[in-house]
Amino acid sequence: MPQTADRCAGPSPWSSREAELLAVTLRLLQQHGYDGLTVDAVASEARASKATVYRRWPSKAELVLAAFSEGVRQVAVPPETGTLRGDLLQIGETICQHGRLNAGTIRAVLVEVSRHPALRDALQHQFLDQRKAAIQHILRQAADRGEIDESAIGDELWDLLPGYLIFRSIIPGRPPTRRTVQALVDDFILPGLARSSGYQAS
Amino acid sequence: MPQTADRCAGPSPWSSREAELLAVTLRLLQQHGYDGLTVDAVASEARASKATVYRRWPSKAELVLAAFSEGVRQVAVPPETGTLRGDLLQIGETICQHGRLNAGTIRAVLVEVSRHPALRDALQHQFLDQRKAAIQHILRQAADRGEIDESAIGDELWDLLPGYLIFRSIIPGRPPTRRTVQALVDDFILPGLARSSGYQAS
Repeated sequence: MPQTADRCAGPSPWSSREAELLAVTLRLLQQHGYDGLTVDAVASEARASKATVYRRWPSKAELVLAAFSEGVRQVAVPPETGTLRGDLLQIGETICQHGRLNAGTIRAVLVEVSRHPALRDALQHQFLDQRKAAIQHILRQAADRGEIDESAIGDELWDLLPGYLIFRSIIPGRPPTRRTVQALVDDFILPGLARSSGYQAS
Repeated sequence: MPQTADRCAGPSPWSSREAELLAVTLRLLQQHGYDGLTVDAVASEARASKATVYRRWPSKAELVLAAFSEGVRQVAVPPETGTLRGDLLQIGETICQHGRLNAGTIRAVLVEVSRHPALRDALQHQFLDQRKAAIQHILRQAADRGEIDESAIGDELWDLLPGYLIFRSIIPGRPPTRRTVQALVDDFILPGLARSSGYQAS
């Protein structure tokens, strides 16, 4: 794995056997959806005992969240295109692809997380913290290159790009496309980020 | 009801008795969540027979979607503040309030809609079409006043404001606030909409 991935996404918190179980879980989720997934099927497909799975992830919801987060972590290699626009487009397209594959899981995870405080902490630490670090890393590099002002890196709207694209992935009928990402980056994100650096006349 | 509400949100498609049943449903949803809601409880609270409820809404999911859409329709009075910024802030704050009250329902509706094509059509016609019309009405008024260019009114990102705010409402731990709406409108939406009218130097 390239060093850049480790730097932002962090090393895998799982043993190779655990990572294997999570990969099986994610594949079965994409095939059968959250409702259709059973811990039995995961154990059988991975040739593990149910007890092994439950020892590490005491509920189906925890297993699913871990599988989802690990799947995102693996594809979330921070882009190094050399420009802010290039980096944002690449992140956006990765989110679209991931959203297309995992829309059902994302919907189910949102419901489960709202019911279980422990899952909420897991989502925060296994997933959201890394994503925020990755985006802020890209913005900081852009500030270092003089593309935007430091002050454009805020806490309030750091997830505007992923948040809107995930919204589009989980509502029916309008999955985001490359065109969505381009319009979002070129028409709103870049003008917004450039604004505080004085590029804008008004 | 003021005429402005009728113009964009459309008149209620329900009889007054049906509207009463939907109001009871929405209140019970806000109290007990999607899982805790039963058609029995709605019928009993509204002093109706279960058959009456099922005749109009053959499944709990359809009843919930109708109640949710009707709840939004009633509060979705198109703002007439006289400025694009004022209109967007007002829409944004209404969405935040509605999102806070109905986060659990929105999550459940997204799951149910993904399972049932008929619900998807209902969401489209009872809800999304009206919301799109309301936002495009505001943008068209702003174009008439010369605040933005006609070309800023596109099909791809018309729901950037509501979409991101709904995303923030349904993820754990970061419900959108007045500050979120202001930053979104002032730092991204307005600079993005103004961009095509030549306000921006670059």
